[in-house]
Amino acid sequence: MRRVGGQTWEFENKPRIIGTSSVVGPEEGEGPLAEDFDYIYDNLQIGEKTWEKAERRLFEQAAQIAIANANISKNELQYFVGGDLMNQIISSSFSARQLGVPYLGLFGACSTSMESLALASLIVDSGGGDYVLAGTSSHNCTVEKQFRFPTEYGAQKPPTAQNTVTGSGCAIISKTGSGPVVRRATIGRVMDLGIKDPYNMGAAMAPAAADTLISHFRDTGLEPGYYDLIVTGDLASVGLPIAKQLLQKEGIPMEQTEFNDCGLMIYDINTQKYVFAGGSGCGCSATVTYGHLIKRIKKGELNKVLVVATGALLSPLSYQQGETIPCIAHAVAIEREEE
Amino acid sequence: MRRVGGQTWEFENKPRIIGTSSVVGPEEGEGPLAEDFDYIYDNLQIGEKTWEKAERRLFEQAAQIAIANANISKNELQYFVGGDLMNQIISSSFSARQLGVPYLGLFGACSTSMESLALASLIVDSGGGDYVLAGTSSHNCTVEKQFRFPTEYGAQKPPTAQNTVTGSGCAIISKTGSGPVVRRATIGRVMDLGIKDPYNMGAAMAPAAADTLISHFRDTGLEPGYYDLIVTGDLASVGLPIAKQLLQKEGIPMEQTEFNDCGLMIYDINTQKYVFAGGSGCGCSATVTYGHLIKRIKKGELNKVLVVATGALLSPLSYQQGETIPCIAHAVAIEREEE
Repeated sequence: MRRVGGQTWEFENKPRIIGTSSVVGPEEGEGPLAEDFDYIYDNLQIGEKTWEKAERRLFEQAAQIAIANANISKNELQYFVGGDLMNQIISSSFSARQLGVPYLGLFGACSTSMESLALASLIVDSGGGDYVLAGTSSHNCTVEKQFRFPTEYGAQKPPTAQNTVTGSGCAIISKTGSGPVVRRATIGRVMDLGIKDPYNMGAAMAPAAADTLISHFRDTGLEPGYYDLIVTGDLASVGLPIAKQLLQKEGIPMEQTEFNDCGLMIYDINTQKYVFAGGSGCGCSATVTYGHLIKRIKKGELNKVLVVATGALLSPLSYQQGETIPCIAHAVAIEREEE
Repeated sequence: MRRVGGQTWEFENKPRIIGTSSVVGPEEGEGPLAEDFDYIYDNLQIGEKTWEKAERRLFEQAAQIAIANANISKNELQYFVGGDLMNQIISSSFSARQLGVPYLGLFGACSTSMESLALASLIVDSGGGDYVLAGTSSHNCTVEKQFRFPTEYGAQKPPTAQNTVTGSGCAIISKTGSGPVVRRATIGRVMDLGIKDPYNMGAAMAPAAADTLISHFRDTGLEPGYYDLIVTGDLASVGLPIAKQLLQKEGIPMEQTEFNDCGLMIYDINTQKYVFAGGSGCGCSATVTYGHLIKRIKKGELNKVLVVATGALLSPLSYQQGETIPCIAHAVAIEREEE
């Protein structure tokens, strides 16, 4: 591994994604990416008595599917690197109990999807493990209840609000085998421009996404056009234009590449009115990346993709104490392996 | 880096601890290790209006002291790897905002101290960074309020309860410079033997500590006597004897080494009756390791130390939903550099 510039790791031993999974709920199943998901639940309960157990079940199922898709046995799996949005990341830690492998728990809010992929790739690249699972999850009802109001209350939301994705995405990273290669990762800094509104996460997180993209191009010397597609995690319809504006202001030529957002890809915000500005949650960038993007890369429709997962690092308590929202974004470059 | 056995990393490029810090509260200042701490507050408020802001201040101060003790400037710091016990690890993430460097947030409950040291060492060892800060914190009043009852309620506790340490410990890991070397790390698996009582964390975590120790000796081929001292994170007076029993049952010859627990070292449980079974919290193993143990290693009183930080991965919600307590332990070996 080679460190380039201030924040970027270039993986030299080609850690690759040999198997992925995406398990989602009914709202994601109504969205434009439905065909790409491995499993779609037609209800939010998922056969469990609490929302938290439902989320855990999604995660455990996604982990099993990723292992199966990677064509390895559970015994071959060496590490699990993951996290989620729940207090004390219980979805991830209880899934780790079921998996029974050495476990590194993370918290980066919705950026955990790429934080876990970056660290899993680092472990594989440096010889620390042959098969490492990276994964994360979110559930609309666990997250709304914890961060805002229980869905059952029917609280009103402003149009800047985003809809937490119900879903879990996992990937198996390996030194051998075939699959898209994790080429580099830019670890983000915390950015906080003073936004306090927990119903406007897109605006809060946009500067973090822009900062990480700027750092990525500065560190690597690459132009945005190097990538076929750059996607942010969950900036949605409010945040993505802000990020675009910030990048334009810095003179980053984003018109050379397709630039989109997982929160806008997973739903059709024109017909799925209940999602307001778009999707959010750890499960958003994870299921879009491991469900949709990896399949497009494998089909040859995309060759080089940069996923910039964004995270809002607030807690309900920090918000109640009048704090602003610190945000972060981690970028991971996934490329089609040359034949 | 070399992976040995199922769970252990051997660092080959000698990542070393070139500066540490420990900042604690009044109860720790009354304990037997007081002389080794960098800064002791005589009150729990620490000049702030909320307990959460007080904890954050401890963490920010500890980070600054570690940077100063490492003789580097803040600009030279490249990554911050850390976490804490708060929901959404706000102490760590808000400290990351102040530090302004690329940040990887972790959650491993009290095991975060060694999880962060292991990952920081991996980053340095693999060439991913030259100066990486690993750190964690806890505050008695934030943790009691979040996991059990606000201290102000004066709720009764059983004798198996532990006292959350108010403190933050940080370390700067570097490829160059002088200081104790991080030689290897064993990443733990989640263990859950069915304990549900949040006032008996020691008993819940003991099997995780034993499992990680057994894995460590199996992976490395080392005997316990190789180490001058093996310390667990925060098993305290209830958990440590259980861990000893479990290791004896497995035939691990622990009588060859000094075997203690940070939760029993930081307080004198005979005179400091208010701590019940001993100390706990992320700050417990962090301040004992970075305050006390590193100083003893530097003085030549200890040559080889294994720190096994234990963590209980429950949340108040998982407990309320009748779940048992999944636990984990990560072990890191710190050794005196040969001259």
